[in-house]
Amino acid sequence: MSLFKVVSGKYLRFKLGLTPQQNLFYGFLTYVSMGTLLLCIPWFHKSSVAFIDNFFIATSAVSTTGLATVSVLDSYNFFGQFIILVLIQLGGIGYLTFTTFMILSTTRKMTRWHKNILKTEFTLPKTIEIKDFLKSVIFFTLAMEIIGTILYFIAFKKLELNFFDTLWNALFHSVSAFCTAGFSLFSNGFESFSDDFLVNTTTSLLAIAGSLGFIVVTDFVLSIKKKDHHLSFTTKIILVGSAVLLLFGFMFFFFFEPVIKNLTGAKRMWAAFFQSMSAMTTVGFNTVDFGAFVMPMLLVTIFLMYIGASPSGTAGGMKITTLTAVIAIMKSRLRNTQRITFFGRIIPYERLFVATSSFIFYTSLIALGTFLLSFLEDFHLEDLLFEVSSALGTVGLSTGITGDLGTWGKLVIIALMFIGRLGVLTFGLAIWAKHHNNPKNHPIRDDIAV
Amino acid sequence: MSLFKVVSGKYLRFKLGLTPQQNLFYGFLTYVSMGTLLLCIPWFHKSSVAFIDNFFIATSAVSTTGLATVSVLDSYNFFGQFIILVLIQLGGIGYLTFTTFMILSTTRKMTRWHKNILKTEFTLPKTIEIKDFLKSVIFFTLAMEIIGTILYFIAFKKLELNFFDTLWNALFHSVSAFCTAGFSLFSNGFESFSDDFLVNTTTSLLAIAGSLGFIVVTDFVLSIKKKDHHLSFTTKIILVGSAVLLLFGFMFFFFFEPVIKNLTGAKRMWAAFFQSMSAMTTVGFNTVDFGAFVMPMLLVTIFLMYIGASPSGTAGGMKITTLTAVIAIMKSRLRNTQRITFFGRIIPYERLFVATSSFIFYTSLIALGTFLLSFLEDFHLEDLLFEVSSALGTVGLSTGITGDLGTWGKLVIIALMFIGRLGVLTFGLAIWAKHHNNPKNHPIRDDIAV
Ligand SMILES: [K+]
Ligand SMILES: [K+]
Repeated sequence: MSLFKVVSGKYLRFKLGLTPQQNLFYGFLTYVSMGTLLLCIPWFHKSSVAFIDNFFIATSAVSTTGLATVSVLDSYNFFGQFIILVLIQLGGIGYLTFTTFMILSTTRKMTRWHKNILKTEFTLPKTIEIKDFLKSVIFFTLAMEIIGTILYFIAFKKLELNFFDTLWNALFHSVSAFCTAGFSLFSNGFESFSDDFLVNTTTSLLAIAGSLGFIVVTDFVLSIKKKDHHLSFTTKIILVGSAVLLLFGFMFFFFFEPVIKNLTGAKRMWAAFFQSMSAMTTVGFNTVDFGAFVMPMLLVTIFLMYIGASPSGTAGGMKITTLTAVIAIMKSRLRNTQRITFFGRIIPYERLFVATSSFIFYTSLIALGTFLLSFLEDFHLEDLLFEVSSALGTVGLSTGITGDLGTWGKLVIIALMFIGRLGVLTFGLAIWAKHHNNPKNHPIRDDIAV
Repeated sequence: MSLFKVVSGKYLRFKLGLTPQQNLFYGFLTYVSMGTLLLCIPWFHKSSVAFIDNFFIATSAVSTTGLATVSVLDSYNFFGQFIILVLIQLGGIGYLTFTTFMILSTTRKMTRWHKNILKTEFTLPKTIEIKDFLKSVIFFTLAMEIIGTILYFIAFKKLELNFFDTLWNALFHSVSAFCTAGFSLFSNGFESFSDDFLVNTTTSLLAIAGSLGFIVVTDFVLSIKKKDHHLSFTTKIILVGSAVLLLFGFMFFFFFEPVIKNLTGAKRMWAAFFQSMSAMTTVGFNTVDFGAFVMPMLLVTIFLMYIGASPSGTAGGMKITTLTAVIAIMKSRLRNTQRITFFGRIIPYERLFVATSSFIFYTSLIALGTFLLSFLEDFHLEDLLFEVSSALGTVGLSTGITGDLGTWGKLVIIALMFIGRLGVLTFGLAIWAKHHNNPKNHPIRDDIAV
């Protein structure tokens, strides 16, 4: 028996002995490690980049956050940028979507174990066929990113770059937007395009589609096309919730943010809509400077980043479904009713328990992250809370302090981005859950994904 | 039938038609209104005080918070100060303890309706006899306040005031400490007594006893005196929780707060202990200036104020029992266990539901209050969050912005102090709960008070 067989056999047994949560954990950890090592190779640099910054950028890319301690444009050459784009794509499409697709296309076998992991990552309804689902996700992703690239290519023509640079910018921003990563190759993000109709609509389309995710988008499209197809309860909640949050942010930014109130006509509308969309979908692009926002508007943005979007997409945050369950609990408590309902439906206790745990964990982690940063950094609380909410929600917006963080501060943000992408509960279970391969240990999942 | 009988008959029917929560609400509202009106009479002023400030001080006194927009010493004469002390005592001992005592001592009758209200305010175990309980509470309160007055009288001798002023100061601070109100007649609180052994110990004794409440203190004393008396589960949790929180604050302040680290020997120990005790018991006195604290230590203080102490005492905050249940939920979630335990006991689901609702409501209200203030005031987030946590937790500590708040900002803090004293859930139920006099509507209360 060769050494290779011993090692690979041991690896396989190690892997199969892990819980789904632990597998996701090690999967993302592998991506981040490999990405960091690759980005450390000087061949990919335009100018020298410290290890901690390569580590930061790799984690930010895999977690689709988009926070950056150094400028991607000025620090990495084309090949470096390409590696970052691959990391974004891998992180966005998900470790397991990718590996399961690879296994499917080579062996056509799909183990029950893999299905469990996939369901942990996507909180899928039980009825969906994993194989068809994966094919469709890959197709959906590629189709959206190609459409995005074409639209951006047209929009970026006015920059008067050569054909290749225009195409590269278009592709990079398309993938970055659809994966809700928000990495940009422009020094001030999309601030030069704040009233560009095509850039505003393309980015919103990609980010909203990516943040809602394949299942919700398909459900929505089918319900428009086919008369006999009815929206699922979860899809309804996610669509209504997203619309309400978008409008909430839009109204506040439009009426109360001086930076946006100073703009005129369509420009003011677009600016209010784009920043609200950016925080809600957690894409994290910006067309105005958040560092200039007044404090109550920073709090509105923090709230949107804190909630995030749909649990079936690439977005981070506590998720709209969790917020829904939390609101239902508050309503029932105030009305003193025994059954907890939303939109006239009774929400099962197990679901409520998952939602309240998510709320408690997510809120505690934001408090803990902010507390740690307050020891390490000398910024005001609003800046720290904004940065932490942005990292844990994998949003990538900042009041401008990211580059000024010390090494320990960067490590805190790296940890938050990683936990945010994995999901707070998944991370906790990967680290602390004791048992494995015991079906009893997987939380019961019902009709509504939380 | 005289007009008086008609009116009083209507009032009685109105009162009996109310839920216990609504009765507490109107009771405290009556105290605040009467207090405000009395304090507005110029006879009680040393210098002119605006209506909003009289309203603020009256609410702060009834809610036993201790935040002040004007100096009590410089604005009110002896009679004004006496009114404030009466409001503190009424607020501290509770609207219903007082009215029920009055009813008992005149009619010797105790209706089931009154018992329900009392249990709503104090979350009493079912077994306690209301009548004996009330007598004992009054006795306990008077005894503690007399002891406190004597000890303070000795401590305040060094101020070299005349006999009456020394006695008045001793009485005022004793009542203020035991009711965890934290109002002071000294311009800089207890800062001149930062290393005075007697003031430190007397204040701590009164505030800890008051914040734990009669039931916990009695249970504790009995368990020391009598060998066959065992501490109840709730008392155990509250005592251990208080000790842990006290130590938590002490360690952070002792090792990380520059203002306290600069002190030497016993003075440093006392300063760290006193500020931790002050935030945890929500008494809100201070021997050092919180305005000079570094940001992470403000966050530690906010955390202590946010939790507060025992549900059976005069302290505000989310309560230690709620924190306990929340920690139990997090632990069970991470370990993937079905039953939720703490100290080896299974916590019933109804109790967990009350605890998570409290957590959600309390946290949301702090966020909402801070958001509202951020629109109205131009301070940094750490100052606003500190002020809001202090008001809702009825603590009374401040980084020094209280006096600089605008009228609308003062109104927000007034509302928070009022809701904080009433209890967030009680307030919500008083306003929104639809049904009344239906036993099903009172949440099931079990062995652990939350
Ligand atoms: K992002
Ligand atoms: K107080």
